[in-house]
Amino acid sequence: MSESYELPRVNGDRLWSRLMEMASVGATAAGGCNRQALGDLDMAGRALFKGWALAAGCEIREDAIGNVFARRAGSDDALPVVMTGSHLDTQPTGGKFDGVYGVLAGLEAIESLHDRGLRTRHPLELCVWCNEEGSRFPHAMMGSAVWAGKLPLAAARQLTDRDGVSVDAELVRLGFPAEMVPRSAVKAALEAHIEQGPILEQHSKTIGVVTGVQHMSRHEVVLHGREAHAGPTPMDARKDPVRGLADLLPALYAMTAAHGPQARLTIGFIETRPGSANTVPGLLRFTVDLRHPEADHYAALKVGLRSLVTDTLQTHGLEGATRCLWEAPGVSFDRTCISAVRDAVRTLGFEAMEMVSGAGHDSCNVSDVAPTAMIFVPCAGGLSHNEAESATPRDLEAGANVLLLALLTLAS
Amino acid sequence: MSESYELPRVNGDRLWSRLMEMASVGATAAGGCNRQALGDLDMAGRALFKGWALAAGCEIREDAIGNVFARRAGSDDALPVVMTGSHLDTQPTGGKFDGVYGVLAGLEAIESLHDRGLRTRHPLELCVWCNEEGSRFPHAMMGSAVWAGKLPLAAARQLTDRDGVSVDAELVRLGFPAEMVPRSAVKAALEAHIEQGPILEQHSKTIGVVTGVQHMSRHEVVLHGREAHAGPTPMDARKDPVRGLADLLPALYAMTAAHGPQARLTIGFIETRPGSANTVPGLLRFTVDLRHPEADHYAALKVGLRSLVTDTLQTHGLEGATRCLWEAPGVSFDRTCISAVRDAVRTLGFEAMEMVSGAGHDSCNVSDVAPTAMIFVPCAGGLSHNEAESATPRDLEAGANVLLLALLTLAS
Repeated sequence: MSESYELPRVNGDRLWSRLMEMASVGATAAGGCNRQALGDLDMAGRALFKGWALAAGCEIREDAIGNVFARRAGSDDALPVVMTGSHLDTQPTGGKFDGVYGVLAGLEAIESLHDRGLRTRHPLELCVWCNEEGSRFPHAMMGSAVWAGKLPLAAARQLTDRDGVSVDAELVRLGFPAEMVPRSAVKAALEAHIEQGPILEQHSKTIGVVTGVQHMSRHEVVLHGREAHAGPTPMDARKDPVRGLADLLPALYAMTAAHGPQARLTIGFIETRPGSANTVPGLLRFTVDLRHPEADHYAALKVGLRSLVTDTLQTHGLEGATRCLWEAPGVSFDRTCISAVRDAVRTLGFEAMEMVSGAGHDSCNVSDVAPTAMIFVPCAGGLSHNEAESATPRDLEAGANVLLLALLTLAS
Repeated sequence: MSESYELPRVNGDRLWSRLMEMASVGATAAGGCNRQALGDLDMAGRALFKGWALAAGCEIREDAIGNVFARRAGSDDALPVVMTGSHLDTQPTGGKFDGVYGVLAGLEAIESLHDRGLRTRHPLELCVWCNEEGSRFPHAMMGSAVWAGKLPLAAARQLTDRDGVSVDAELVRLGFPAEMVPRSAVKAALEAHIEQGPILEQHSKTIGVVTGVQHMSRHEVVLHGREAHAGPTPMDARKDPVRGLADLLPALYAMTAAHGPQARLTIGFIETRPGSANTVPGLLRFTVDLRHPEADHYAALKVGLRSLVTDTLQTHGLEGATRCLWEAPGVSFDRTCISAVRDAVRTLGFEAMEMVSGAGHDSCNVSDVAPTAMIFVPCAGGLSHNEAESATPRDLEAGANVLLLALLTLAS
């Protein structure tokens, strides 16, 4: 794009109305969304998206792990694509913007070019990655991981939900192809997303220029005790895994605090078995999500978890184990892509700050095979993975304009 | 019975073989039993029992809450009955003896009289109480509570299991009568049971002469936080109910320890919602079972629970509440019934001790309307509500002989 052209802008009203229309698919009573991966509501959301993308001059392609690609031809169409996109699936009690914003901001960027008859030199490719949330099928960012070659297709298709339904069964039922198509050559990739944290809001910034993603992992801790009757069994004759938890929980929170304000500890799932009110549980199981942007602190958190669990087992005469279920090492995004975002922000005059993402995103996988960066916009109170998730039309429009200009730079 | 007769004895081998035959109904792979109340396996266990009772000269009667009564006529059959019995339902991962022993020891006592053609003056009534465990339908000792007039029939029949199936639906399906029959006049009642604790074993005693039951109650604590994403949300910006639990658990165990070795605290059920590993839970729910044999300590435990929960809510800015789900005040058993047990122990020459039951039993309800006492025998390691629950044929026979002699005294 030459400086003499007037720079195009997105249509913020259209973006907002499409976000609201998408939110009506799988809408929950509390104002959120429930479109879990590969369910019928996820498919209904994708159908809405595909209609809009076709009308904006894109061609649609789907792959063997349930990803959707909407391609807009470039003026030199044999060149590598410039990608953007995110996901449409949600947590069971998710919000209206997580993932959806990145897809619809990308669509809005393409549609704004379509409105003006502008064509980029490189083709553009808008992606809807399958099962980013990992809440129905237990592998977050599943579709982008398979696409990037980090997770074998067969392993992903074998994943099952809590009812025992496999990814494979759903993909067959929904008519997805059996084999992966060869990956397009990718020049660069951008993803717009709500921040899902309170930093931009606290600093009164409109745009976060995301330079990387923190280190993160998910662990399962199992404590085996001995089932016993709640009444006659004296406290000192018990092997009570909840007593172990009583030691572990405060120790885990204290350890996390010792690694500074950037450390994150989340215990999202706790279960006792048999789960009867008048029986000392024979088994206690919980998940531990650990994150830190700095490698040394992150490593110390993982070592600390294992050592605290070992201490607790010894103190209380319990059996048990810690198992790492999933790990995503920290990511540093591409300098050229970051510059394209930084330049777009400067051109548009928005208040911005550079930041590291606390959450994992499909861009972590994409960055393994292509130059990548991300653009954040604020969300109210930093709330996400919550039905009350909220963002302003003004900030969402700003982020989409940054995305549009950065895409134009990268695709020129 | 005159002193000149030779005192009858039970057949310990038959008692043991019947215990093992009953344990084959709903047997679990780990050697325990799963016959939850009013399920098909509970019915199969009762059918086995009814066949044995009919063959031992009893008449069978069932009531509108699923209790079974096997009556053996007395020589003066219009006199009030002397009752004995317990329950055949089990925890989901229960053992072979909890409840079952009391039913089959009673059957063995009656059968030993039947073998010898001995008839008591008062009629004997052997009861199988419905849903003592309260693990499928959430009201422990349900059948005896309705029988004793402490729980309205309609309220009990409205109870539902986790799949939404009601007691009423099961009773209709299984052909139980719709109305309660008038309660028999009861002269005295005895229940034999495994101790479900380690005291007898620790003191090398064969028989526990049970003089009462400790105070006990079950509470539900709910902590409401705010769902948030595990990654970007700083620790100090969270409303994390698990952080509340990290304060509460050690405080609850410490408070319990301060009330001495007879105090009991059991946290059998813990649940987080939405239960997603990468979402700070919006809700945490757990049960608290509190017990103490002394009224003042017991009252202090309940006050302490409420006050610790209130403190935690304030400290962490959480919403929440404590709710008492069920309470059974302590029971002092009847002096005449206790004496009958004590005399039988002395006659038989067993090592015995007087004790207070840590667990609730149907006898707590029965004692509301009739003179009552209980007989305990040891179980290995005090284990109960556990598939590994175990007791020796010798101790079980000893307890059944005590029951037989005490019944003869009370029914003469």
